[in-house]
Amino acid sequence: MGYFQSASQISDIIADLPAVDGKIQNDAAARQARLTKPPGSLGRLEEVAIWMAGWQRRSRPSIEHGQCLIFAGNHGVVAQGISPFPPEVTAQMVANFANGGAAINQLCDLANLKLDVIPLDLDYPTNDLSLGPAMTASETLNAMNHGANALDENCDYLIVGEMGIGNTTSAAALCLGRFGADATGWVGPGTGLDDDGVKHKAKIIEAARIVQGEVDQHPVSLLAAFGGRELAAIAGAVLAARMRSIPVMLDGFISTAAAAALTANKNLGVLDHAMISHMSGEPGHLRLAVALRKQPLVDLRMRLGEASGAAVATLLVRAACATHNGMATFAEAGVSEG
Amino acid sequence: MGYFQSASQISDIIADLPAVDGKIQNDAAARQARLTKPPGSLGRLEEVAIWMAGWQRRSRPSIEHGQCLIFAGNHGVVAQGISPFPPEVTAQMVANFANGGAAINQLCDLANLKLDVIPLDLDYPTNDLSLGPAMTASETLNAMNHGANALDENCDYLIVGEMGIGNTTSAAALCLGRFGADATGWVGPGTGLDDDGVKHKAKIIEAARIVQGEVDQHPVSLLAAFGGRELAAIAGAVLAARMRSIPVMLDGFISTAAAAALTANKNLGVLDHAMISHMSGEPGHLRLAVALRKQPLVDLRMRLGEASGAAVATLLVRAACATHNGMATFAEAGVSEG
Repeated sequence: MGYFQSASQISDIIADLPAVDGKIQNDAAARQARLTKPPGSLGRLEEVAIWMAGWQRRSRPSIEHGQCLIFAGNHGVVAQGISPFPPEVTAQMVANFANGGAAINQLCDLANLKLDVIPLDLDYPTNDLSLGPAMTASETLNAMNHGANALDENCDYLIVGEMGIGNTTSAAALCLGRFGADATGWVGPGTGLDDDGVKHKAKIIEAARIVQGEVDQHPVSLLAAFGGRELAAIAGAVLAARMRSIPVMLDGFISTAAAAALTANKNLGVLDHAMISHMSGEPGHLRLAVALRKQPLVDLRMRLGEASGAAVATLLVRAACATHNGMATFAEAGVSEG
Repeated sequence: MGYFQSASQISDIIADLPAVDGKIQNDAAARQARLTKPPGSLGRLEEVAIWMAGWQRRSRPSIEHGQCLIFAGNHGVVAQGISPFPPEVTAQMVANFANGGAAINQLCDLANLKLDVIPLDLDYPTNDLSLGPAMTASETLNAMNHGANALDENCDYLIVGEMGIGNTTSAAALCLGRFGADATGWVGPGTGLDDDGVKHKAKIIEAARIVQGEVDQHPVSLLAAFGGRELAAIAGAVLAARMRSIPVMLDGFISTAAAAALTANKNLGVLDHAMISHMSGEPGHLRLAVALRKQPLVDLRMRLGEASGAAVATLLVRAACATHNGMATFAEAGVSEG
């Protein structure tokens, strides 16, 4: 079963996406101005409430069926020694998620999000992106459909994350393919490379650029070239959410890079329904956030992945909705206005 | 009933405060290094968990009896036209708190904090600080005791906030008295002054400096000089929390300024048990955070007061504790280390 059948159909979908509900958004902004507080004094919580209202298309936004999707994949490029952790850790961490032992388990419990972990062919790593395309177009579409199909029928708020040893290399290569500039500006320590390791990683990404040449500016082409399956699945989930007008909270560097593939041909509006939850400690994330014209909600120097930053930011989304919906207006409370 | 009987007794208390439990803090840091994540990858959540453990003196920190104290006071200096809101709003907002209609009501519900609102002689504003001391030493001690006595027996985590039309003027004057520099660097729009209003406010504070001269560098003297009662109550609550080794989350500009009075004589360590929750949109807060050597947890451009930023940050404290306590170690989960 497939949301996505071909690259050209995805182009058609992207050309015809639903827009935010401007009327509900204006009403939400007007309500914020009437609540018992100095105008604007809830800062970004007001922005979040208005964003949620516009995309959920309800005047009182809320997270009733929030979902956390984590996609896991393995990467042929680990053969190039670009991670301090062995690739077995991807499956080990998937087991840890299943057993409730990871950070995201605790955070989804706290934020009241349903957690679904979707491992994608972990025994068959994608091809080494420094030697050629990581995936075929068909594999890419398949992974995107895994992402899209993972959304529940009643999902009204989505956070996305990933697990995949080697995937900061994949994400950095994707950023280079999408936004250009220099390989060194997109790489970082990932799970803990030292300076020499980071330099080596930049060389691998530079090698990928030379081997793969100019990659077609299309989401499927970019995701196929640099992988991995979990990044394609995130892109599929984010696009499916937009088709259904579901607000999305992106996690850190890798999930933002995956979503950025959807903005090929400089179509930044395709991510209007998505916020970046946190500024990752992975240095390429700052450059990526600037390129997407999005300011992360928080900066806690987190760099864990697995949707952990998005889950933390969800607590703030709940704060934004709670104040928006629950506060009295000046008139209701009999408070004098300034 | 009084925690605090005199300025000299407060000096003695401050000279003999309990320190953090270094052993428990080291154990907590060691546990963080064993949890299933790249070392340090939970960023400031790790710092918060370790801070909570050290002050709560338990290896598994948590908020079991979290309390939110809001103190309200009125200020004679409002006669100088330093706020766009009339002083009646202080009592109106106290009624709004009681009726559950304010931002902090929604946020305490969400963060599972007990909310106590303590109005302090609202019908008797403190003296106009631009004409002389806002309070006597005895009034100041009385307000500090109100603050200290508001802590419940079983409180294990405290957030503090305030409501008081005119109190950014009080806080800015206190900062000038404590840290010096220029009046304009400490003032801001508060609830919504325009540029001319901010300039006028700076002049009022400059007038206070001239009229009051050099104020003795002691918490009671600083709080008496610049008021108001709610600031003195916050200082009392923060000091009482330290005496009981209870971690404190400060709110924005005003509560941080109130706590800063305790650091008179450059004793910054008196606030080691306190974090600053958020960087307020009120511009003096940045300078104040730098002076106290504390980095706020989040920057959401909030500037509401009433403990709202501290309540939001409490959600992150819960995230920090949940991950610290609930995650599996590498050994427990059978995950390979990097």
